Amino acid sequence: MSHETLDAAAASLPAEAIDAIERAATSAHRHEELFSERAANIRQSAVRDVFDISLRPGLVSLAGGSPYLRSLPLDRLAETAARIIADDGLTALQYGAGQGTEELRTQICAVMAAEGITDAQPENVVITAGSQSAQDVATKLFCNPGDVVLVEDPTYVGALNTFEAYQVQVETVPMDQSGLVPELLEARIAALQLAGKSIKFLYTIPSFNNPSGITLSAERRQQIVDICRTANILIIEDNPYGLLRFNGEPLAPLRADNPDDVIYMGSFSKIFAPGLRIGWALVPAHLQRRYYLAAEAVTLCPPALNQMLVSAYLRDFDWQGQIRTYRSLYAERCRAMLSALEEYMPEGATWTSPEGGFFVWVTLPEGVDTYPLLHKAIDAGVVFIPGAAFTPSDEPSNKLRLAFSAVPPDAIREGVRRLAPVLQEALAAR
Amino acid sequence: MSHETLDAAAASLPAEAIDAIERAATSAHRHEELFSERAANIRQSAVRDVFDISLRPGLVSLAGGSPYLRSLPLDRLAETAARIIADDGLTALQYGAGQGTEELRTQICAVMAAEGITDAQPENVVITAGSQSAQDVATKLFCNPGDVVLVEDPTYVGALNTFEAYQVQVETVPMDQSGLVPELLEARIAALQLAGKSIKFLYTIPSFNNPSGITLSAERRQQIVDICRTANILIIEDNPYGLLRFNGEPLAPLRADNPDDVIYMGSFSKIFAPGLRIGWALVPAHLQRRYYLAAEAVTLCPPALNQMLVSAYLRDFDWQGQIRTYRSLYAERCRAMLSALEEYMPEGATWTSPEGGFFVWVTLPEGVDTYPLLHKAIDAGVVFIPGAAFTPSDEPSNKLRLAFSAVPPDAIREGVRRLAPVLQEALAAR
Repeated sequence: MSHETLDAAAASLPAEAIDAIERAATSAHRHEELFSERAANIRQSAVRDVFDISLRPGLVSLAGGSPYLRSLPLDRLAETAARIIADDGLTALQYGAGQGTEELRTQICAVMAAEGITDAQPENVVITAGSQSAQDVATKLFCNPGDVVLVEDPTYVGALNTFEAYQVQVETVPMDQSGLVPELLEARIAALQLAGKSIKFLYTIPSFNNPSGITLSAERRQQIVDICRTANILIIEDNPYGLLRFNGEPLAPLRADNPDDVIYMGSFSKIFAPGLRIGWALVPAHLQRRYYLAAEAVTLCPPALNQMLVSAYLRDFDWQGQIRTYRSLYAERCRAMLSALEEYMPEGATWTSPEGGFFVWVTLPEGVDTYPLLHKAIDAGVVFIPGAAFTPSDEPSNKLRLAFSAVPPDAIREGVRRLAPVLQEALAAR
Repeated sequence: MSHETLDAAAASLPAEAIDAIERAATSAHRHEELFSERAANIRQSAVRDVFDISLRPGLVSLAGGSPYLRSLPLDRLAETAARIIADDGLTALQYGAGQGTEELRTQICAVMAAEGITDAQPENVVITAGSQSAQDVATKLFCNPGDVVLVEDPTYVGALNTFEAYQVQVETVPMDQSGLVPELLEARIAALQLAGKSIKFLYTIPSFNNPSGITLSAERRQQIVDICRTANILIIEDNPYGLLRFNGEPLAPLRADNPDDVIYMGSFSKIFAPGLRIGWALVPAHLQRRYYLAAEAVTLCPPALNQMLVSAYLRDFDWQGQIRTYRSLYAERCRAMLSALEEYMPEGATWTSPEGGFFVWVTLPEGVDTYPLLHKAIDAGVVFIPGAAFTPSDEPSNKLRLAFSAVPPDAIREGVRRLAPVLQEALAAR
């Protein structure tokens, strides 16, 4: 396997390299002069290309955070899709309302009620092409170049890519094992505002953060909202995993008691099927109209067939039972990963113990860079995502993300077993 | 019916009005301070809300440009969707490649070959959430605030909304009955460049332009490309209707002989099913990578199920026969509209005679404003789109768009019959 391929795949390809490739290809043109300023900020997502590599046979992929779909009732879903097209094809295959169907928006309110948002109104729900598109619309609507967006350190790589494409200055706030630290958030806001920065929103994944698996404690949630409210900063709450808590009831989202402060983003990608690309934003009433218009300018309307299939799933299937199935499935896989880490990891490595979601976050001693270890891990038959992907900085990172969602317990155990000597060697070489 | 509702529906709601609504709703917040500068440019699409009004029973809608789906083989499509989910559900419902499936990108090259683009490579195709999303990505990638985009006068309202959301200065170039006038394009470019403007691209719908139905003549096509090449301006060629020519072969797109000059945008919305939201961009090789990354940052990946359904349709169904069916269907409807216009329109009205597509463009004498006539037309039982929607200017327009795609010939005739006295009265009142 060529390391050049891996280099391109495993980290953000620098803008300069893309420029050079394009200059070479365009000797007859001067199209490179036409790129917008933001184009230089549009980068390769590390996760996406490692995801492609990880499909190779024989590799154990602990890289991609794909949900495990084998437990879905595919035959019944097939019949349902057929019925929708046969009976309602003229609607399912036609243009629809830009905001999404009223039926699905109403059902989404019931899904949100299952995790503690009890006052949502269908007219404030905007259906989007996955949460990714909801993040894109929010950034477009609020962020001028140079504006600040606050994120957890670490945070979702796809959101970083979206923010950077709008030339936003992304600033991190540290987490501890109980999530974002309120005092540090407050201090960071004060420092940035003192420096004359315009902070538009805090982007947070409070439950089972991607990539760290860390959950913001119940006690801190209202504190975080109050800090942002005082500073006049919106909160973008990204909660794709919230219902996938291994034990007990879901924690109430930040949005629950704070309808005016939070744009809440949900998704069917983790609790049903990502291939349908159906997510949503629950938008404060006073911001809804502009948000909806901005979404419409991007995709015109969400796909009607996909919305009707999700509606049928929520109406005719035991979607809550399916979530219980997922919860115990992912809990078992998480236990398998934690016990394999316990057994195989070298002295000096630590890791998080998630209460839900898809990911464990491993920290190696200071001075170890996990990025070059990826090549060696792939040679050893296992794939992970280096920690540097999940921060806006280009600094080396001594962290790595392991996903337990997509592979069975035996493979998880085998993957960790293959990974251990690679890490061991790096620690010994320090 | 309240005229307030109609006012909101029938034209772009001014940014000031949205501001006022939001200020009233947010007395406890200062969130309006957080909007980006571009947010003020994000407006209501006239077409979308008139589309909603036009669903009311009893009205004849000549407003929405929806395709007529009754001739699709819904039962066989239902079986196909069922088989995809039952046999390949783990792929169809999962995340996929950001650029779209290789199978569909390869098939799309064959679709483009049917209209004269014979050298397209699958690696240069990026599948998007309809053409709308392809336009959004292109604007994001190339346009800084204040940059100029050239468009035909008139042009597609959805593209105008997209451009304005990026704070682009949209400049129009006149058409005559043979489409965009090369000399006027050249003069417009020269004047704008002399004024120091940075022109990024020409957005054009050369075949059966929406809303005018006008087609750029074969002779002018290369002239337009050469003018833009000399001025180092990209061309965005939007060609959703190209295969829907009533008689004879499709005209070769501008892209056909000019692979490096044109970002070509195609769509399955008019030749198959808009509810799937599958479109594409064919991007010059030297621009492909950045275009793809920008698309990925917006939606992560296109929906796998929808792509597989389109692939099955192109593989297992007589899609070219279906296009022949559509061509004769729309040709018949166009004839019905033209003959009804001939019979009922008042002296002084003129209209275009499209060779394909969905629309006829009616011009009334100078001094008549078609926007207030919409209220009266709805009272008379017919809906159209006022011409002002299709230009970036806020000036009154003496034009209107009539769509013949979505309603049968009898209803077209009845709609035109209802419209005629409304126009007659307006002409008499001058």
